[in-house]
Amino acid sequence: MHAAFAIGVDVGGTSLGAGLVERDGRVIAESRRDTPDSGPFGVVDAIIEVIEEVQGQVHAGDVAGIGLGLPAQIDFRKQTVEFCTNLPLTGIDVRSLVTSRVKHGVTLDNDGHAAALGESRFGVAKGVRDFIMVTIGTGVGGGIFVDGKQYRGHRGLAGELGHAVVDLEGPECPCGGKGHLEAFVGGPAIARRGREVAESFAGTSLREAAGGDVESVTAQTVVDAAREGSAEAQKILSEVGTVLGRGLVGLVNLLNPRLIVIGGAVGSSSSLIVDRVRETLEAEAMAGRRDAQVARSELGTDAGLLGAAALALDEYDTRQGLHR
Amino acid sequence: MHAAFAIGVDVGGTSLGAGLVERDGRVIAESRRDTPDSGPFGVVDAIIEVIEEVQGQVHAGDVAGIGLGLPAQIDFRKQTVEFCTNLPLTGIDVRSLVTSRVKHGVTLDNDGHAAALGESRFGVAKGVRDFIMVTIGTGVGGGIFVDGKQYRGHRGLAGELGHAVVDLEGPECPCGGKGHLEAFVGGPAIARRGREVAESFAGTSLREAAGGDVESVTAQTVVDAAREGSAEAQKILSEVGTVLGRGLVGLVNLLNPRLIVIGGAVGSSSSLIVDRVRETLEAEAMAGRRDAQVARSELGTDAGLLGAAALALDEYDTRQGLHR
Repeated sequence: MHAAFAIGVDVGGTSLGAGLVERDGRVIAESRRDTPDSGPFGVVDAIIEVIEEVQGQVHAGDVAGIGLGLPAQIDFRKQTVEFCTNLPLTGIDVRSLVTSRVKHGVTLDNDGHAAALGESRFGVAKGVRDFIMVTIGTGVGGGIFVDGKQYRGHRGLAGELGHAVVDLEGPECPCGGKGHLEAFVGGPAIARRGREVAESFAGTSLREAAGGDVESVTAQTVVDAAREGSAEAQKILSEVGTVLGRGLVGLVNLLNPRLIVIGGAVGSSSSLIVDRVRETLEAEAMAGRRDAQVARSELGTDAGLLGAAALALDEYDTRQGLHR
Repeated sequence: MHAAFAIGVDVGGTSLGAGLVERDGRVIAESRRDTPDSGPFGVVDAIIEVIEEVQGQVHAGDVAGIGLGLPAQIDFRKQTVEFCTNLPLTGIDVRSLVTSRVKHGVTLDNDGHAAALGESRFGVAKGVRDFIMVTIGTGVGGGIFVDGKQYRGHRGLAGELGHAVVDLEGPECPCGGKGHLEAFVGGPAIARRGREVAESFAGTSLREAAGGDVESVTAQTVVDAAREGSAEAQKILSEVGTVLGRGLVGLVNLLNPRLIVIGGAVGSSSSLIVDRVRETLEAEAMAGRRDAQVARSELGTDAGLLGAAALALDEYDTRQGLHR
């Protein structure tokens, strides 16, 4: 007898969601809301709320546990939050706070790692042993699969691929660094560029997409406007894709992956970004590595939630002595 | 009964050498010469010469085989040279050409991989499971050890860490890319900067180090002048170390290694570069990863040769059914 379900929670800088997930990856129930900006306990309360909304759908005994993907650096062995750029969770004992209020065991992981596991188990990276997952949302993160397993590094902090220097004189990054990939490609950078363009003489279509309110332009506004044909929005995402591609040149040369998956709220909703990344890698990656495929996430914004659920199932199976 | 020796060959863009190496890493005999610029067969001839000079020291039956580290992208499974930036070996069947003229089996690997294996087996990375080796010579290369093993990627081409974009508008790289780390940190880039400074009004000490002949300034001239107190040379290497450190920020954030080893002809002879890398990582790597240690190669220019010998020993032991 083993549990047939797990709850996966994906916490992003903008929204958070929980899903009750079957072993085959089907999402039986899902709950999502905006991430509150009312401090660490507000975030924890919202996490509890979305869990409670989905957990009642089945008997507690059928749930393997809860996987929690956070946009934070997680010491995976200690299960602690070491550092969180985009939410006030640095040093907060999220695992204990959540565990004390739910019926199930809780396992934390970095959200990019969770998304990579999700794509590996249920998505476009199924069966691929060496791949890189890139998530573009509020932050830029991801995970690296080496020989079929998540690569975690010596303290479990590996995979922060948004924080590589791509421009020596580049702009400040939310992490405190300078010229990092995230400072060009992350949601806030896209939104800022969108507002600049919307304010300019040429930005008519973006201004219209924002209902005339330039200050309300977000990364999602730019993505939506691009899909509806705004040439200015398409140009912004095209530039984002080129910089992302140039950042990934180094990773492809370094890691020689078979596949790169582009996901996250922004990455999974723009084929333009994926196309530019592919073209840039074909042009600039070293010979012999240009066979690295570039694919858009199949799971979209559910990748993290599904991966978090897979993590909880893996933990449960390991405890039960069931090995994958 | 098993072979007590192996021959390691390290081929660089500037010099190449062979060593007869004992299982404990002692070098019994060594031969080194300048890498000829007379085309691919000139390079192969020189490889044969250095092998012949060291192989006669012991009985052929005591030699496990020959390991050959090349400054090239090697498809490790196929044992072919896929691409070579700094020597005319692209597509040349180096393994067959060498094998046909020596008494032993030959195993090819990338020179940076060989250096990483050397440091792992005999040098400063002994016992460290997760580390990054960076070699700075004519090219910038290296190897990544993940969980105690060389990480090779899906075709064996992993580890080209000199070819990551660190500057979107940066100078051309020998590989054809733009703004790559090697274009700032490689030997030719250091030499070029050295000549610029030597030509300038302030470059007195560098001009003197070159015996007044500005055109003769090489990376080694800069390294030597820095060691002898030239403030201008020290400034050049200090800048090189800072850019290298900023390039490594991304790798540390991505891979969370325990140790970074700086080696190669230039890297292992300048403590200034190592110091700047350390400072830069302490300042700019993400929280929780700043415990990554930075060390200068202990084996210096012998790292590649020793690693190549270790590779030959490993191959031999695997064939004999002896497992490490």
